[in-house]
Amino acid sequence: MHAIQFTGRHELLNAVPTISSPIFPASMYTVSGEEDGIGGASELGTEILVPVCAVLHRLLINTVVLGLAREAHGGAPRAGGANKNAYNDYLIEEEEGLNDHSVVAKCADIQCAISEGATSFLFTEYQYVGMFMVAFAILIFLFLGSVEGFSTKSQPFVSGFLGMKIATYANARTTLEARKGVGKAFITAFRSGAVMGFLLAANGLLGWWCIYTKAADVGADLVGKVERNIPEDDPRNPAVIADNVGDNVGDIAGMGSDLFGSYAESSCAALVVASISSFGINHEFTSMLYPLLISSVGILVCLITTLFATDFFEIKAVKEIEPALKKQLIISTILMTVGIAIVTWIGLPSSFTIYNFGTQKVVKNWQLFLCVAVGLWAGLIIGFITEYYTSNAYSPVQDVADSCRTGAATNVIFGLALGYKSVIIPIFAIAVSIFVSFSFAAMYGIAVAALGMLSTIATGLAIDAYGPISDNAGGIAEMAGMSHRIRERTDALDAAGNTTAAIGKGFAIGSAALVSLALFGAFVSRASISTVDVLTPKVFIGLIVGAMLPYWFSAMTMKSVGSAALKMVEEVRRQFNTIPGLMEGHAKPDYATCVKISTDASIKEMIPPGALVMLTPLIVGTFFGVETLSGVLAGSLVSGVQIAISASNTGGAWDNAKKYIEAGASEHARTLGPKGSEPHKAAVIGDTIGDPLKDTSGPSLNILIKLMAVESLVFAPFFATHGGLLFKIF
Amino acid sequence: MHAIQFTGRHELLNAVPTISSPIFPASMYTVSGEEDGIGGASELGTEILVPVCAVLHRLLINTVVLGLAREAHGGAPRAGGANKNAYNDYLIEEEEGLNDHSVVAKCADIQCAISEGATSFLFTEYQYVGMFMVAFAILIFLFLGSVEGFSTKSQPFVSGFLGMKIATYANARTTLEARKGVGKAFITAFRSGAVMGFLLAANGLLGWWCIYTKAADVGADLVGKVERNIPEDDPRNPAVIADNVGDNVGDIAGMGSDLFGSYAESSCAALVVASISSFGINHEFTSMLYPLLISSVGILVCLITTLFATDFFEIKAVKEIEPALKKQLIISTILMTVGIAIVTWIGLPSSFTIYNFGTQKVVKNWQLFLCVAVGLWAGLIIGFITEYYTSNAYSPVQDVADSCRTGAATNVIFGLALGYKSVIIPIFAIAVSIFVSFSFAAMYGIAVAALGMLSTIATGLAIDAYGPISDNAGGIAEMAGMSHRIRERTDALDAAGNTTAAIGKGFAIGSAALVSLALFGAFVSRASISTVDVLTPKVFIGLIVGAMLPYWFSAMTMKSVGSAALKMVEEVRRQFNTIPGLMEGHAKPDYATCVKISTDASIKEMIPPGALVMLTPLIVGTFFGVETLSGVLAGSLVSGVQIAISASNTGGAWDNAKKYIEAGASEHARTLGPKGSEPHKAAVIGDTIGDPLKDTSGPSLNILIKLMAVESLVFAPFFATHGGLLFKIF
Repeated sequence: MHAIQFTGRHELLNAVPTISSPIFPASMYTVSGEEDGIGGASELGTEILVPVCAVLHRLLINTVVLGLAREAHGGAPRAGGANKNAYNDYLIEEEEGLNDHSVVAKCADIQCAISEGATSFLFTEYQYVGMFMVAFAILIFLFLGSVEGFSTKSQPFVSGFLGMKIATYANARTTLEARKGVGKAFITAFRSGAVMGFLLAANGLLGWWCIYTKAADVGADLVGKVERNIPEDDPRNPAVIADNVGDNVGDIAGMGSDLFGSYAESSCAALVVASISSFGINHEFTSMLYPLLISSVGILVCLITTLFATDFFEIKAVKEIEPALKKQLIISTILMTVGIAIVTWIGLPSSFTIYNFGTQKVVKNWQLFLCVAVGLWAGLIIGFITEYYTSNAYSPVQDVADSCRTGAATNVIFGLALGYKSVIIPIFAIAVSIFVSFSFAAMYGIAVAALGMLSTIATGLAIDAYGPISDNAGGIAEMAGMSHRIRERTDALDAAGNTTAAIGKGFAIGSAALVSLALFGAFVSRASISTVDVLTPKVFIGLIVGAMLPYWFSAMTMKSVGSAALKMVEEVRRQFNTIPGLMEGHAKPDYATCVKISTDASIKEMIPPGALVMLTPLIVGTFFGVETLSGVLAGSLVSGVQIAISASNTGGAWDNAKKYIEAGASEHARTLGPKGSEPHKAAVIGDTIGDPLKDTSGPSLNILIKLMAVESLVFAPFFATHGGLLFKIF
Repeated sequence: MHAIQFTGRHELLNAVPTISSPIFPASMYTVSGEEDGIGGASELGTEILVPVCAVLHRLLINTVVLGLAREAHGGAPRAGGANKNAYNDYLIEEEEGLNDHSVVAKCADIQCAISEGATSFLFTEYQYVGMFMVAFAILIFLFLGSVEGFSTKSQPFVSGFLGMKIATYANARTTLEARKGVGKAFITAFRSGAVMGFLLAANGLLGWWCIYTKAADVGADLVGKVERNIPEDDPRNPAVIADNVGDNVGDIAGMGSDLFGSYAESSCAALVVASISSFGINHEFTSMLYPLLISSVGILVCLITTLFATDFFEIKAVKEIEPALKKQLIISTILMTVGIAIVTWIGLPSSFTIYNFGTQKVVKNWQLFLCVAVGLWAGLIIGFITEYYTSNAYSPVQDVADSCRTGAATNVIFGLALGYKSVIIPIFAIAVSIFVSFSFAAMYGIAVAALGMLSTIATGLAIDAYGPISDNAGGIAEMAGMSHRIRERTDALDAAGNTTAAIGKGFAIGSAALVSLALFGAFVSRASISTVDVLTPKVFIGLIVGAMLPYWFSAMTMKSVGSAALKMVEEVRRQFNTIPGLMEGHAKPDYATCVKISTDASIKEMIPPGALVMLTPLIVGTFFGVETLSGVLAGSLVSGVQIAISASNTGGAWDNAKKYIEAGASEHARTLGPKGSEPHKAAVIGDTIGDPLKDTSGPSLNILIKLMAVESLVFAPFFATHGGLLFKIF
């Protein structure tokens, strides 16, 4: 017990000052030595829970990662019979081709190519981002005039990298398991996703630093769908590996990094605000640890929840996949609510004082519980609304599919309208969480509400990563020449995966909004602004220009995806024209060149939007000052969140409308199909338009609003002292 | 002179109290009797200029309206030879078919059908809006507890109605004149547009009241493009008349009403703010009249500018049409700058004091000149940026056309990206105007900047109305069975018209943003709020929900257009199936039923978005109070203006990309064409998607943001006293 206690304290003492240097002035930590205060009992809980969870995590990850890696790399599927999972008996579909070793070898080959591509992509990306970070570090040095303890260690890189590695292994493994039926494949895909989720969550808990690296996401998201303007999954297609690499990098490393970023940033924001608000006199350490407590409970809850997916329930049919994934969310939310109630009651004193932009405010512990709970439940609501608007089980997507009857134009109009409509309830959910948490505990409340929404991050990431893994499994099955039946199974996994990916995106956007607001609050506190009055010209122009930035940013990213896609199409055409025997399947295409093109494109194309995000706060802060910058942050937040939600749901709806027609599972769907019919062609056009919307434009807007807020927070003292040059001159 | 002076004063004294009652408390006008103050010299100018302009206007309108009506109704074209215009000699195209009386009779027939349809549409619409207004008047009565002097006289109705009448006459006349060549047709179309412009401007100057009627626009805009999902202009198509009616109603009456509304509202806002700010002690009347002075000068300037289009320059070729229209804008802006400088110098004292949310502020007259001028020039910049992004003479639209090579999906992606990109510079232009005018003269500055932007409204409306008139002329030519050559001429007019319609929309959006801000300022002043602090939960939730409203509203309007279009398609199919001989051209289609369908659809479909706009301020103000309502207004303003600009430019770009491919005027364009090629088909899909974006979603958002601000202003005292019920309960 004592040893664990020591480890926990030790890690925390290491972690906190590491991030603190550029963001928190050292003076904020003067009281952190007071360990034997009144909150002793609650601190004991904190000291045990946090390190235990962290250790549990690391063990879990090591076991699963090693297991996955060994199995997938060896290319040998586990024999179905000797399996400790007993569901095989219940599965509708029988096993087939388990002993066909040529297929297994082919799978391993393809997996190697994808893994290689993804690794080379991330290394190239990190190299450039590394250069950028050095440049930015120098900038911070110059601006803030101090480098003491500044750290650019790349924890999220590591996290994204490991997650991506697991995902590529899992792709191949899911394909192999699909031969044993849907149930097994589901478990494999889900488990792999879960590893990714826990990995990030553990990293979020154990490592705090380096939050200036989100530009990597922009690139990762960019490349994600660059290669889609090509025919179906086909091993002869040179871009097919690049597409799979894009899925792994963009959807898994990208989205993982995004959610992880939100997680780290909301914890950071909570800490900054907590240190500024200085929770009473005797409870500093407890209140600083409260965000950690929430995260720890979250990890435990998600661990328990995973058991429900893989051990308590059984997947017997295709149609059970989606409900199983959704149940995960509900279970984790309910357990989490109980968990937060317990840690809040144990870990916090019954009431304390915080400082809210100059005024004192008494907060009760049940109020803080409500702050976290409202964020948590808002996340669930956003997740389910997203599902309602993007799953083809409900009328919105079916209406969009139906509109394909009159052509691509009506499909696009209905799809855009659906996206716009899907914004309404999530925004109300976010508004209610903001109102409740803001009213109860000001910016600290917002930060813990964001943490509440993200506390089930491991489950969210698991069902999110599940999508692209299943998608690639289908591609590998096709390329390895597996039977039509296996392809049907992976397609079923994929359809569920699309909906759940949309749910993950909903979470990401909702939490990004809360996190940005918390960071915005931290920035305002740090820049010593007491009001941000819309009725002043400085703030209002910031607000309207800020609301414009997401459009500028989206224009850049969408155009980039378009151009890169055109380049890829040209390369594919070139290979078909110059490589003899490629069309006939005698010669192997040059996969590597396509991966290189998408890598180069993402590097090159991420520069303008990256520069927009990084330079805007610097330029606005330096020339227009903190008031205008506050306006810009608020404007980009309220405008960006709408575009992000509508773009990602429109894209998701088009994707599933196409799948709805292709699957032909209902009377209505069959009147629209089959594949190749006029309505189906219209649906394919919608799906193609949706790709950059849902995979690039939408998710990258999260990064825009969060990164601008983080950067403003970092440079706040500089802007407050030296900013507003333009107004000083005139 | 004395008589005119008396008339002017008399009208003004009548007009001001008429609108004042619900908006201005009577106490604001206690000083308006002081007519012999220090500003006597400037008042003299005011007293002469305003009535002279008004009289000039009325004369001009009567002459032109009567002339147009006589000629168009008689169906007899003026003989080309005896014309006082001497350009015929220069025109490239010779006259043809001038004496073919059957064609003329057919034209008259078609014109009658359109006019009848448009009249019946507007009457039905006004009937419903009338009922709505009565209901709303009762609501205002109940809420404000006073009906003294409240007026619901429908000046904009009258204005929209007259403008629409002229436009339908002008359609037929333009077609007939097109037989004489491009030059004559241009002058007719332009003149008719000009009448519309002056009519509205004069109404704006002479009649102030009734600004609660903008819901009519929503309906008018809705029906505008409902009927597009049908084949080309063809007299056998039952929906063709409904389409023409839609163009007249939506683009001319709708947009006219929109711009007129902005005009009336910005004058109103200026008056409210002027009365609240109470410009020093001795200059009340002059400062109240300054908005009128600006408008008067605007009318004179536009009158002079029109001479350049019809009398000083000559249109010799198709490619000269667009530059001629653009020159109009530049000339009017330059003349206007000089005009404002003169009236500001003559009409205003050198400095005076205004009250800015509780603090005093000294404003110099050159500062007020700058406020107006910055609005005026921002309008010009917005107009030209809009033109750059929507005209096929420049690379953006050509790039979009080029993307049609790889299909409809890339066309849509590039078009959306173009729309997003086109937001950047207009927002900066608006931000600069806001900053300059806000800094110099607070909300009064914003109001006069909006008036500055709208001072060239007559020219803007003229070139805006020119578009649909030319468009319908083409339709009538086709239906009347005129030669291919005439159709080519009207097409040339139309292509220029599309770009200029986009310019008009740019103006409308820019001015709507400024007007809404001015109204917002008036609301805030009237509700006695001194700060709207983003850092309070009440304001922030208002901001984020407000930013969501344009999406909700757009979702409704776009879906409505889609449904109504589907209904129209069904009716057209029904007629083709049940009316024997229709396909062969022996039987006449039932145009009236199609007009009725679009009328009914627009009535029915305008209810949900209309309710959203009308109920939001009431609900928010009553239950959440004035702080949240301020947030909602600011949020919807900064978010709505972006969607409006991007939607209308995306739509305009797709429209002209299609026309670019069809015209095949360059080497590049010919590689994409001809009509019916794969790239052309992709372009047609984009064009169809663009219709609801540019003709419904975009323009109706102006109404959303303005109407919510107006309504909040009207109910401000009620909300300030009794609002925020929800917070009072908890």
